[in-house]
Amino acid sequence: MSRIVVVGAGAAGTSAASNAKQFDRSHQVTMIGDFASTAYSPCGIPYVFGREIDSMDKLFLQKPEFYTNEIGLDMHLSTLVESIDKGARTVVCRGGETFPYDKLIICTGWAYVLPKIPGVELDGVKFIKDIERAREIDRELDSVDDVIVWKARPVGLELATGLAHRGKRVTVIDDEPWLLAEFADPDVVKMGQDSLESMGVKFMLSTTLKELKGKDGKLVVAVTDRGEVACQMAFMAADEKPNTALAESIGVKLGSGHGVLVDDMMRTNVPDVFAAGALVETMQAVAGVPVSLLPSTYAYPQGRIAGTNAAGGEMHTRAAYFPWAMEVGKVQIGGVLITETLAKALGRQYTLGEAKGITSARYHPKVEPMNVKLLVDPKSREIIGVEFYGGDGVKERADFLAFAMRKHATVDELANMENVYSPPIGALNEPIALAAKDAQKRLSAH
Amino acid sequence: MSRIVVVGAGAAGTSAASNAKQFDRSHQVTMIGDFASTAYSPCGIPYVFGREIDSMDKLFLQKPEFYTNEIGLDMHLSTLVESIDKGARTVVCRGGETFPYDKLIICTGWAYVLPKIPGVELDGVKFIKDIERAREIDRELDSVDDVIVWKARPVGLELATGLAHRGKRVTVIDDEPWLLAEFADPDVVKMGQDSLESMGVKFMLSTTLKELKGKDGKLVVAVTDRGEVACQMAFMAADEKPNTALAESIGVKLGSGHGVLVDDMMRTNVPDVFAAGALVETMQAVAGVPVSLLPSTYAYPQGRIAGTNAAGGEMHTRAAYFPWAMEVGKVQIGGVLITETLAKALGRQYTLGEAKGITSARYHPKVEPMNVKLLVDPKSREIIGVEFYGGDGVKERADFLAFAMRKHATVDELANMENVYSPPIGALNEPIALAAKDAQKRLSAH
Repeated sequence: MSRIVVVGAGAAGTSAASNAKQFDRSHQVTMIGDFASTAYSPCGIPYVFGREIDSMDKLFLQKPEFYTNEIGLDMHLSTLVESIDKGARTVVCRGGETFPYDKLIICTGWAYVLPKIPGVELDGVKFIKDIERAREIDRELDSVDDVIVWKARPVGLELATGLAHRGKRVTVIDDEPWLLAEFADPDVVKMGQDSLESMGVKFMLSTTLKELKGKDGKLVVAVTDRGEVACQMAFMAADEKPNTALAESIGVKLGSGHGVLVDDMMRTNVPDVFAAGALVETMQAVAGVPVSLLPSTYAYPQGRIAGTNAAGGEMHTRAAYFPWAMEVGKVQIGGVLITETLAKALGRQYTLGEAKGITSARYHPKVEPMNVKLLVDPKSREIIGVEFYGGDGVKERADFLAFAMRKHATVDELANMENVYSPPIGALNEPIALAAKDAQKRLSAH
Repeated sequence: MSRIVVVGAGAAGTSAASNAKQFDRSHQVTMIGDFASTAYSPCGIPYVFGREIDSMDKLFLQKPEFYTNEIGLDMHLSTLVESIDKGARTVVCRGGETFPYDKLIICTGWAYVLPKIPGVELDGVKFIKDIERAREIDRELDSVDDVIVWKARPVGLELATGLAHRGKRVTVIDDEPWLLAEFADPDVVKMGQDSLESMGVKFMLSTTLKELKGKDGKLVVAVTDRGEVACQMAFMAADEKPNTALAESIGVKLGSGHGVLVDDMMRTNVPDVFAAGALVETMQAVAGVPVSLLPSTYAYPQGRIAGTNAAGGEMHTRAAYFPWAMEVGKVQIGGVLITETLAKALGRQYTLGEAKGITSARYHPKVEPMNVKLLVDPKSREIIGVEFYGGDGVKERADFLAFAMRKHATVDELANMENVYSPPIGALNEPIALAAKDAQKRLSAH
């Protein structure tokens, strides 16, 4: 029997604690979370704001009792961990309560970097994270007409889509010249911007937010280097940072990406201390660079590996290809890193393959575009990146390509892939194969 | 310069002829088709009957002039090839016109096996193939209330779906005890049957159609071993056979699957004679058995290979995994062979992996089921078959798994696949990974 303490009750923490207990039920597993809630999907918040989902309550996956009664965890919510006594091997909480551990798993996640913009402390300026706070914002939104979204990042665009759907006047402000600049190329996101604009969303790109001005403590206007925008609420898709302070306080080392450095068993450099979730670094397979702040699809398996290993098992992690996809307005956009922008920044050679495909037979009323942009290594002919934009099926194609890239699929294999043809659900020519054929042509032209 | 003659103007023929000409424009390429039309999508016919697509005209991909003017083919439609003079190397057409060839590509496709059912010659009994005939049937349908569909095969179920959508009273009659018996397992197709039944379609399964009875030459009733069904029209999804007579007449050998035997360059045993399309045999990769009558997604690449090779190039075919998918009522069903039924028939060992997954976040209004049934080889742990049934995304997943199976993906690789999570378009847990994890559990329980 070991005493395993998990700090953090988000996706990584609940996964680590549950898997540790399930691996060996003789362990005493304690999970400590600072928020009052656990086991909900923060990703759903923009859709509740948008009234696509009618209640925050629907975002909860499990009641807290599930973890105590069914899994058998010792759970402490609304409990702030103040320090760790590495010598005594105890976790010390605000109020003085302490929890001794044999193995410690740190799952403290991420935090927003508070932007240095005057007025950011005003009442109407919102950072989306905790669901209980989101409930309040949801109510406040009823009396708001004009909102700004700062930064056209994934959560910013989900908020813009949702708020436009709810009938708000939305302006998106970003220093970057195009949407999703960290994930996608400008040609790939244009269709999403068009879609949001057709829903009434305004974009101020290449635009710096200088100040948020209030009146009687309430937000009234956003000041940019390109003019002012009246607004009663501002959603800040600010920079995020790995929440590493607690880990660092006991000597846990960070990597070059400012996240916690773990080995392939999720162990930190400090004996018996594991970490999992947004605070740790994962190697991006194609770019060969460590990235932190990965989403919850990674927090769950990482938590599983950390929890299982802390409990005495042996599981290993791998580099990540990181497929992603989302709806921007009514358009789906997604892909697998790296992008053309990133390839250029890394000085990486690539050949493009592009296709303007479709999702079903061209004559079927459900037909939608499915555009594909492939990046191919001209020497190995392997796929090193892909982006999709268009109608339904981007998520499935991104999953497929992430798997194919892990299997070192070449452009020739994709050009000759078999595909389903059925008028309502699949075109004669699969868009991925068309893009691969285009890349083959360009490769042979060299 | 060679004279290349292509017999057949369907998918394989147009592909063979176009690719031969495009490979080397000095060749004289002649394409001869017996129907009046070419370059249309017969797969769309059930959707025109169903009024999802408003006109047969939309099914045409290209006007005949495209092939003569743009591609540069010598094209002869409404022209029946009566024989081939192997010694003189000429194709002889009805009326006496002859076409000399240096290379011949036979793309004569498939034909229905006329079932030995009394009354099959009656006016209201229809076999769907030629689009001009389908136009007439479409008009006749206006004055028809009750139809039967014989055989719950893909085209039969597409017709049933379309005709129910158009408001006809539809009864599907099949000797088999479940739908799509050649492609899918009974548990997999049940949801599709339920959906069609909710649209008013009646099923008479394990039922033999004994006779089609007419009055004044017009169909009025279908007689089965389980009773009679009033009907003014009967759609026969009858057995199909490779159209090999012309090929056989010059000594082309058939394989064990009754299709034309070709090598991996689409060459028959007769020198300078190629074949491509539904009449040739292709090896099914997992079952290791030759199959003919493959759909047009195979006819195009086969035609391309035959045409390119006849023109002096070198392209090779591969065994097929054969992903398939379709809509049955409002449910999508699909997969990659082999099924559990086929595994049993082949005496092949397998372990199942099953998952009742979902297509988006469980709380999102667009959520639909996505059920997965995996067959895993218990020794190699490779995937040897998969079936899907549920909402959107079956086509993309079938394509993915066909590719993964060609790359010899194991259940462990699929269990650890990365996946997109985004509330409106992808669930936290990809259903394929859930099914793979289920298979892992069953494998370790042995």
